[in-house]
Amino acid sequence: MRCATILPRGAREAVPVVAGPDGAWIELAAAMGRDCGRLEEALPWWLQHGAALAKRTAEWAGPRYRESEFVFMPPVRPPSFRDFYAFEQHVKTARARRGLAMVPAWYEIPVFYFSNHHALIGHEAPVSAPRGSQELDYELELGVVLGRGGRDIEPENAWAHVAGFTIINDWSARDLQRAEMAVGLGPAKGKDFATSVGPWLVSRDAVADRIEGERLTLDMTARVNGRTLSRGNVAALHHSIPRLIAHASRDVDLLPGDLLGTGTVGTGCILELGPENTGGWLKPGDVVELEIERIGVLRTPVAARE
Amino acid sequence: MRCATILPRGAREAVPVVAGPDGAWIELAAAMGRDCGRLEEALPWWLQHGAALAKRTAEWAGPRYRESEFVFMPPVRPPSFRDFYAFEQHVKTARARRGLAMVPAWYEIPVFYFSNHHALIGHEAPVSAPRGSQELDYELELGVVLGRGGRDIEPENAWAHVAGFTIINDWSARDLQRAEMAVGLGPAKGKDFATSVGPWLVSRDAVADRIEGERLTLDMTARVNGRTLSRGNVAALHHSIPRLIAHASRDVDLLPGDLLGTGTVGTGCILELGPENTGGWLKPGDVVELEIERIGVLRTPVAARE
Repeated sequence: MRCATILPRGAREAVPVVAGPDGAWIELAAAMGRDCGRLEEALPWWLQHGAALAKRTAEWAGPRYRESEFVFMPPVRPPSFRDFYAFEQHVKTARARRGLAMVPAWYEIPVFYFSNHHALIGHEAPVSAPRGSQELDYELELGVVLGRGGRDIEPENAWAHVAGFTIINDWSARDLQRAEMAVGLGPAKGKDFATSVGPWLVSRDAVADRIEGERLTLDMTARVNGRTLSRGNVAALHHSIPRLIAHASRDVDLLPGDLLGTGTVGTGCILELGPENTGGWLKPGDVVELEIERIGVLRTPVAARE
Repeated sequence: MRCATILPRGAREAVPVVAGPDGAWIELAAAMGRDCGRLEEALPWWLQHGAALAKRTAEWAGPRYRESEFVFMPPVRPPSFRDFYAFEQHVKTARARRGLAMVPAWYEIPVFYFSNHHALIGHEAPVSAPRGSQELDYELELGVVLGRGGRDIEPENAWAHVAGFTIINDWSARDLQRAEMAVGLGPAKGKDFATSVGPWLVSRDAVADRIEGERLTLDMTARVNGRTLSRGNVAALHHSIPRLIAHASRDVDLLPGDLLGTGTVGTGCILELGPENTGGWLKPGDVVELEIERIGVLRTPVAARE
């Protein structure tokens, strides 16, 4: 099952929707048969009543939204957004490019930073390099959306807290990031301008056949102007998704709708590949497509800063 | 003028209040003569109508809350919480203790990280070291609360966006922080368990006589079990508050209620002073009091983790 948040053309209020069998979208409140507010507020109900919702959606004969009639917003407005750093190849290569060796602590601790959960943009929304940056980069990540909150969640119970998955493009201004991270904390303005999330949320049960213990197996690719630059798989995560959730929830409350990013998959950004091998950093007119198997394609045009 | 958010004993809903002339607290909605929701939602109105509110508060003859009748909650539930690192002495000493020299970039860029805006606790709420930590520390910081949102705010206009000031105790688990920051991003779980904020918000106009250009002058002290350990002044900030706001707002929207921490003032934590000089890291039974001139005292008992 897929859910999304859309802004119908000419409307002011976003509408949570669920994908119908013909690919058109049904208002989630109507399909649920109850008020639902924003999508993140509906997630706890959705986690519990997924089968009933799937049945109602399959039989739906009421009004639907066609994709020409709306734009996609980020599927959730997350209460918080933690971004991890959990793919070994990315960390190794990115550090090597800065002349740094691998840190033993990385293998022990699933480190993350908080990113700006108010700067999310949806599928097809344009992105621009922030002021003063000449080195705009993409980052290919899986997004994990919680449907049930919790505190001190054990890894063996963690999948039950996951509503579903989405795609994250963690836009990065490498020149700003390099300067600020020399100080030893962050990143801040190197990331704090935009993160693309979407196009939708695919329910965990829709990929249950790809979950084995703590491992999720899904191919990940990134294309710039149609040329494939990045290839990886979620299964390469050194710290599994259940362990990311367990670590995040230590001594604090996680909330429904909270967004966790896995960090960039190996080869999943220009920084790793080397701008000399990709045609340079991103520039206005480029189109970046991130694809994750079973989830979809998150497309973003790069535009000049206004 | 002082505003706060309180939880009356036995109540389930927090109530925004404003301090009356006799030290008791008046429901903010009643004093404003209009619905106000949460305190952060009232801040844009408050910034515009401060004089009228002060007049109505001074003349108030209606019901009031006495301090024995409620507990203080964090004054705002901020949409986001950026914590800076803007006092030179703290950065220099903390780095020196880890064997690191000062970074030239620090003088150029007001670096910050996002901290967990959902883990705030109020005045007198107990704090515990998180699981696995033996090195609980306090950090003495000024909190700046925005009353008006904005994007790409210029330093010369930044004060107009500030509703007021509060006190922040940015609790830190030094052992967890040391381990995770070796990886080169964060901090995360070294801070992501609790931050005390309060007791209340003092309006910017109440300290207008202490603002000169970009500089705010207010003494800061910290006491552990009644013994003064830390002494500093807001005026020692290398990056001024207007410049912190300008930097934070580059290429993103700031929102009313957003919280900015200045970072720790010089001498403002055990890490800097050396646990060998302070009687060790904090332990259950200790009481930490942070005082900022014209603002108040933020008191926290340290408790054992349950």
